[in-house]
Amino acid sequence: MQIIIDEIASNMMQLQDKGNVASYIPELAKIDANQFAISVALPNGEIFNAGCFKTLFSIQSISKVFTLTLALDKLGETLWSRVGREPSGDPFNSIVQLEHEHGKPRNPFINAGAIAVADAIMQGHKSSKMLAEILHFVRFLADDQSIGIDENVARCEAHSGARNISLAYFMASFGQFENPVPDVLNTYFSHCSIAMNTEQLAKAGLFLANNGKNPNTGFPIVSSQRAKRINALMLTCGHYDGSGEFAFRVGLPGKSGVGGGILAIAPGKASIAVWSPGLDTIGNSKLGTYALELFAAETGWSVFGD
Amino acid sequence: MQIIIDEIASNMMQLQDKGNVASYIPELAKIDANQFAISVALPNGEIFNAGCFKTLFSIQSISKVFTLTLALDKLGETLWSRVGREPSGDPFNSIVQLEHEHGKPRNPFINAGAIAVADAIMQGHKSSKMLAEILHFVRFLADDQSIGIDENVARCEAHSGARNISLAYFMASFGQFENPVPDVLNTYFSHCSIAMNTEQLAKAGLFLANNGKNPNTGFPIVSSQRAKRINALMLTCGHYDGSGEFAFRVGLPGKSGVGGGILAIAPGKASIAVWSPGLDTIGNSKLGTYALELFAAETGWSVFGD
Amino acid sequence: MQIIIDEIASNMMQLQDKGNVASYIPELAKIDANQFAISVALPNGEIFNAGCFKTLFSIQSISKVFTLTLALDKLGETLWSRVGREPSGDPFNSIVQLEHEHGKPRNPFINAGAIAVADAIMQGHKSSKMLAEILHFVRFLADDQSIGIDENVARCEAHSGARNISLAYFMASFGQFENPVPDVLNTYFSHCSIAMNTEQLAKAGLFLANNGKNPNTGFPIVSSQRAKRINALMLTCGHYDGSGEFAFRVGLPGKSGVGGGILAIAPGKASIAVWSPGLDTIGNSKLGTYALELFAAETGWSVFGD
Amino acid sequence: MQIIIDEIASNMMQLQDKGNVASYIPELAKIDANQFAISVALPNGEIFNAGCFKTLFSIQSISKVFTLTLALDKLGETLWSRVGREPSGDPFNSIVQLEHEHGKPRNPFINAGAIAVADAIMQGHKSSKMLAEILHFVRFLADDQSIGIDENVARCEAHSGARNISLAYFMASFGQFENPVPDVLNTYFSHCSIAMNTEQLAKAGLFLANNGKNPNTGFPIVSSQRAKRINALMLTCGHYDGSGEFAFRVGLPGKSGVGGGILAIAPGKASIAVWSPGLDTIGNSKLGTYALELFAAETGWSVFGD
Repeated sequence: MQIIIDEIASNMMQLQDKGNVASYIPELAKIDANQFAISVALPNGEIFNAGCFKTLFSIQSISKVFTLTLALDKLGETLWSRVGREPSGDPFNSIVQLEHEHGKPRNPFINAGAIAVADAIMQGHKSSKMLAEILHFVRFLADDQSIGIDENVARCEAHSGARNISLAYFMASFGQFENPVPDVLNTYFSHCSIAMNTEQLAKAGLFLANNGKNPNTGFPIVSSQRAKRINALMLTCGHYDGSGEFAFRVGLPGKSGVGGGILAIAPGKASIAVWSPGLDTIGNSKLGTYALELFAAETGWSVFGD
Repeated sequence: MQIIIDEIASNMMQLQDKGNVASYIPELAKIDANQFAISVALPNGEIFNAGCFKTLFSIQSISKVFTLTLALDKLGETLWSRVGREPSGDPFNSIVQLEHEHGKPRNPFINAGAIAVADAIMQGHKSSKMLAEILHFVRFLADDQSIGIDENVARCEAHSGARNISLAYFMASFGQFENPVPDVLNTYFSHCSIAMNTEQLAKAGLFLANNGKNPNTGFPIVSSQRAKRINALMLTCGHYDGSGEFAFRVGLPGKSGVGGGILAIAPGKASIAVWSPGLDTIGNSKLGTYALELFAAETGWSVFGD
Repeated sequence: MQIIIDEIASNMMQLQDKGNVASYIPELAKIDANQFAISVALPNGEIFNAGCFKTLFSIQSISKVFTLTLALDKLGETLWSRVGREPSGDPFNSIVQLEHEHGKPRNPFINAGAIAVADAIMQGHKSSKMLAEILHFVRFLADDQSIGIDENVARCEAHSGARNISLAYFMASFGQFENPVPDVLNTYFSHCSIAMNTEQLAKAGLFLANNGKNPNTGFPIVSSQRAKRINALMLTCGHYDGSGEFAFRVGLPGKSGVGGGILAIAPGKASIAVWSPGLDTIGNSKLGTYALELFAAETGWSVFGD
Repeated sequence: MQIIIDEIASNMMQLQDKGNVASYIPELAKIDANQFAISVALPNGEIFNAGCFKTLFSIQSISKVFTLTLALDKLGETLWSRVGREPSGDPFNSIVQLEHEHGKPRNPFINAGAIAVADAIMQGHKSSKMLAEILHFVRFLADDQSIGIDENVARCEAHSGARNISLAYFMASFGQFENPVPDVLNTYFSHCSIAMNTEQLAKAGLFLANNGKNPNTGFPIVSSQRAKRINALMLTCGHYDGSGEFAFRVGLPGKSGVGGGILAIAPGKASIAVWSPGLDTIGNSKLGTYALELFAAETGWSVFGD
């Protein structure tokens, strides 16, 4: 395993076309595209790392996996009255589908869906309290109390998040929101600004590769059925309008973030986190996707066959 | 296994709400909704059946799995210049996406995509010759020379297929077609009218559960990588705008047809065919989906975890 | 003329189906649907009234005619880089078109377009100053210093205007806005809350029937060409997705508001204001439209023939 | 008048950017863009011509004005159950709106709408008989028995009309058609291939400027109300997604064709036909539009003021 990921990391550093770093906020735009990290966490506690796996990055939309897990814990299957379970066929920040479907977002992994999830979990609490709860959960999953928010990113998000503000008010115009829109947006912008490294992220996602159980304690974090369902959503909807492509090329459930990270799950085998900040045109990490494609080919890990 | 499927078949017969039989052509509309069949084919050659597994039905869109396999064999990865690999977020017969994306269909499993695949595999041949080739392939896969076309259904399709004719001419208006539109439509309407029973269908799909290899001979029908990719497409796009839901509930790659059949693949384990002609509002077999959900829960077979 | 409008007013009061009062804000929802007023102002200074022509109502989107006039005065034809001149083919508050056309609204009379116009005229000023300027202009046009804002309506608009807030942030996400979004929205919500009666409104619109000239002084308010162009926009875009219907039935340029008012222009002949708060399904005054249809038939006034 | 149009014709010949000739069929693509003609027909029988006003061109979509008139004569206002009266906000050959509105086209002047009108007027007759009737009507209007079809264009249309075939079958898939689709398309392709010169066209449209009356006989061809309504539809929908622009710049009802012709109506004053085969990006004659803009400015003729 270590040999495989060392070679992948080495290959990645030699590629010229690393994609383009997200430019919509200055804090992300100034990041050096010339970085790559990969971490593989196994249910038995082993972890393999290569590249700059100690470098923190903004996990952005990968945080939606954790807020979805929290939301399912709090609301159970009633959550699905607020958000759908289908791929959108549209870009991550599209509003067209919202108008056609009366304010109900297609899935919890597009921006509108994650904002709806943020509203659903708040239940009248302030965004500061909510953020503390989310952070507590992520720290618990990663078994690492040092995880926190990148305040600069959070501030920037709030300042440059006109599209997300628009999505939130659009849903609110259908009477879909239980909490004040600015509070919901605060929660959303904050949890997108959680900073982690690949090692922390791989560990935080490991329960999804372990039938929902905490690999340290063996106790369930979610039921086996729920773990499978979250994996299913990651596979069909985890890469926006590139989800079909990711399933085709990599063959594993995954969730990407505009910060350049991807969390991929090989059920029963491992949780894999990669990071490289350059993005493809759809907004997914270019090298990260390619590294996972090589990784899946080398290990033979795929949910679609050996 | 036999006990599991017998019980499922028994449960299905007791359900009241069986969905509605497809009504767009008389040959399908007159079918009794009160039927159910399931067949499970294992790589070792064993096959388990329950319900009316000898009854022939129109496989309709399930045939798209076989034409896609043929097209990849003939054209290799260049096929993807003609058709995409993403879920559509639209109904199976939508034309909106085609206009927005300049005549290129989103994936090979929506109607427009399968018509484009039909054009791609014809390569100047007549539709009668093409149909013979498709039938030859399906008979070989199922190891059953008795498989044929339901001529009444084929005739009806051609008469009531205004939407599909419209889709074909729409793509042709972008200069996408290599063969005359009526010939392409003939091929498409014919292969959708192949009649099979669940036993034949489960056997025909078994190579996809067996890393691409013919279970009888051990020789590859497609490469292991290609089998995985076809499975990936079935998972993300195989149930039209209900693909996310099927992945969420069943957790296996699958392809449905408006005749009420579904072919599902448990990679490395089995090929499962179900049939029940009543459909849900999206056009997928209502009892068939439910039966597969029970089957996946009972066996624990899911690509997303144990 | 007086006989014609008296008879129309009388007919209107006898109709049972008066449409439904706008319900999105309480201040509008509580208005009695059983009201009707009509005023006809001639270039020679004559004015004819019938019904409750002294009752104030919220002019809502009719104010967009006045802000467009101001914007053309301030920016000239460069305004058209910010907003288009085509009918939208969508409801008044649709956001779909904005996404397809990269944040540029189709015309100045749909909500998004009027919000863009509000931004264009502010030029760094505060919304309070801007509103004062708009009010000053409307009072000058109507020659009536008593015209003001309905503060209750303005407050309600701001509280229940989630869709409009969404539209504004959506445009801002394309970098289209020169002023802070909340200030622009304040200006927009305020000018929509101007309260007038039909007599004041008919007088305020008279310059558009008088080749752009102030009927009292003979001095131009806008050039003859600009008056024609504003009339053209009212005809093609003034009734949202019911503009074609209004042109077909009434045959005069007009602009409706969700408060139940309509301003119609018979070029060279008269400015006509009607008010009845019940709306049709598209959001235009039901009786108001019908009254104008009768009025046009009786007078033979139509831009499309005698 | 003669001086005005001579000067316009002279100006037009000096312009460099004449737009691009329609290229979708060879018969149109080979036409020299360097041509311009204008004819102005007055109700008193006078006619003024400039440029190559004797050159025949394919009137294409301008024929939709005549088939609409025929359809209203045959079906009366029940025609509006088949086709709407609103601008579409989409290109002339868009199919998106048809899907969103269940196969009912937005207006009779987009391609789908005119095909629906062709179906409505056929009433079981063959396309050859139908075409004879349309030609008879146009010859009567223009008082010129020499008007006919350009058979080469008609043949080309049928061969390269994949998009229109698609539109027709799409509508037929909603059960909207009373006649066989190929017959309806024959009628449509044929009437679009009528060849006229500007003098004939101006005379054929004169009844719309004359309150519906035949200028030679004084007898009504349509009622005054119907003439006004056809003019209203030309103004709001006559230039596809450039209708708002044409109303803004020219201020007269008009209908354009992809052959480069435009018929414009100054109610009570004149019928004006222009021709120049180069098109703008929307598909309307570039010089033709510009010439009408100059003509309207010179004469002061506008439906929106003096």
